[in-house]
Parts: sequence; structure tokens; C-alpha cells
Amino acid sequence: MDRHETTVTGAPTDDRGRIETDETLDLIASDKVEGTPVYNLAGERLGSVYNFMVDKRSGRVAYAVMSFGGFLGIGREYHPLPWQVLTYDPHQGGYVVDIDADRLRGAPTYDAGTPPWGDPAYGRRVYDYYGIAYPYV
Amino acid sequence: MDRHETTVTGAPTDDRGRIETDETLDLIASDKVEGTPVYNLAGERLGSVYNFMVDKRSGRVAYAVMSFGGFLGIGREYHPLPWQVLTYDPHQGGYVVDIDADRLRGAPTYDAGTPPWGDPAYGRRVYDYYGIAYPYV
Repeated sequence: MDRHETTVTGAPTDDRGRIETDETLDLIASDKVEGTPVYNLAGERLGSVYNFMVDKRSGRVAYAVMSFGGFLGIGREYHPLPWQVLTYDPHQGGYVVDIDADRLRGAPTYDAGTPPWGDPAYGRRVYDYYGIAYPYV
Repeated sequence: MDRHETTVTGAPTDDRGRIETDETLDLIASDKVEGTPVYNLAGERLGSVYNFMVDKRSGRVAYAVMSFGGFLGIGREYHPLPWQVLTYDPHQGGYVVDIDADRLRGAPTYDAGTPPWGDPAYGRRVYDYYGIAYPYV
């Protein structure tokens, strides 16, 4: 049975058909988002969610950070994506993004050692790249 | 040096005075929120953030889930709090809530094995208990 087969209510179920309790139709636990695979529209796995950045004042998720490859975390690359570009697909058990691999290769990225969040212009570049209006001042 | 001493810009710094890169003035990484201590106004440690629940559609954090005690996770209790009741204090390196221990003891709680998120009325009870308008339909 597909681990993410849905019930009649659409709520995700585990491999015994029980409704998962770390996820409902509306809510998902933060530690479940971390590690969730990310696919493109063709169903190819692009990477997985490493973590995500929360805006402290508004409580909104600002970026999902995807990680790619890297052996034991060495040489790992991180791609921040505006949260809005990710759609959760319970059937695949992961997020789907409408971004092809070439576009992703040209996107803003950073190395494990040097997260860019101290640079206020960085977030704007990420949103601009994906054509999403930057929601902060 | 206090690990969370702030710079002139208010950005959190690590123990070498470098600006932390998993946290800025505005943003905090999801895996940094998890495990962060929670204090009351008197500076007493009440517990820590176990994880938090994100509303999938809006991308808003709906609940921070505090954990208390329990040996190796056995008998651990979880207290969901509306995200709005938590204020991050960089000087204490944790969240501060204006809730005394008695009020917290009477609050909605659940055991490790039985998260209540499948029950739509549960979330409303949590918001009602803390006197915050329930933001969902």
C-alpha cells in the first residue's frame, strides 16, 4: 500500500492505513517537513527539504531550503525556494515544484558553511529569480 | 560572553561574536526553533519547543509544541501553544511566554503517542484557552 494513500477525507495515512498524526489535511509538523523529498512535475526527485526559514514576527514560512547531493554533507548545496513554489502531494509523499533542472541549476544557492541570511538583498534575489513578489520591506 | 549577546544591529551572534547564520533579525531556521527553551516572564524555564505545526496552505506557523520532562521521551507531555503567545528573546536565547505555571498545567496537553491533530475541535480549544482568536474556519 502506498504510504501516502489518502482516506476518503483526504487525510494522509501511514502504511497501516491509520491517519498520520504528525500531519493532517491542513497542518504538518516542522520536523516532518525537514527531509521530505522534492520532485519536479515529471516526478523526478530533485532533492529534499533541509530546513525552512520562518519569519519571526509574522510567523510565516519565508523559504524552504532544498539540499542536493554532497557526500556526508560535504560539498552539499542549498537552494532556498520561496515557500509558495512548493505544493505538497500526498500521493508522492513529497513536495512538487514547477521548476526544471536547468532553472534550478541557475538559481541562487549557497554552501553548507556560508548561509547568506545576514545579507538583506539575498532574499529579494531568491524571490525575484522565481518571479514571486517579495513579501518583506 | 553570552551566546546570544546582540550586535549593534540587534542580530544574534555566536560565542565568537560572529553573526549567526541560521538566524537573523527577521528569520529563524526551523531546526533552530526545535529544542529552543521556553521561559516565563520571571525567567523560569518551563520546557522547550519540541516542534511546530505549519498550516500547509497559508504557510503560517499555527502552533508551537512545547515538551515537558519525561525520561527518554517516556511520559513526555506536549503543550501546543498558539504561535502568537511566544516572543523570542535573544538575550535569554529562548522564547518567553506570559503564562504562569498553574495556567500551563491546566492547558490542553497530549501524550507522546496520541497527537490530537486529527480532531478539528482541538485546535480551537487551544486558541480559546489562551484567549487568542482562532484564525481558521
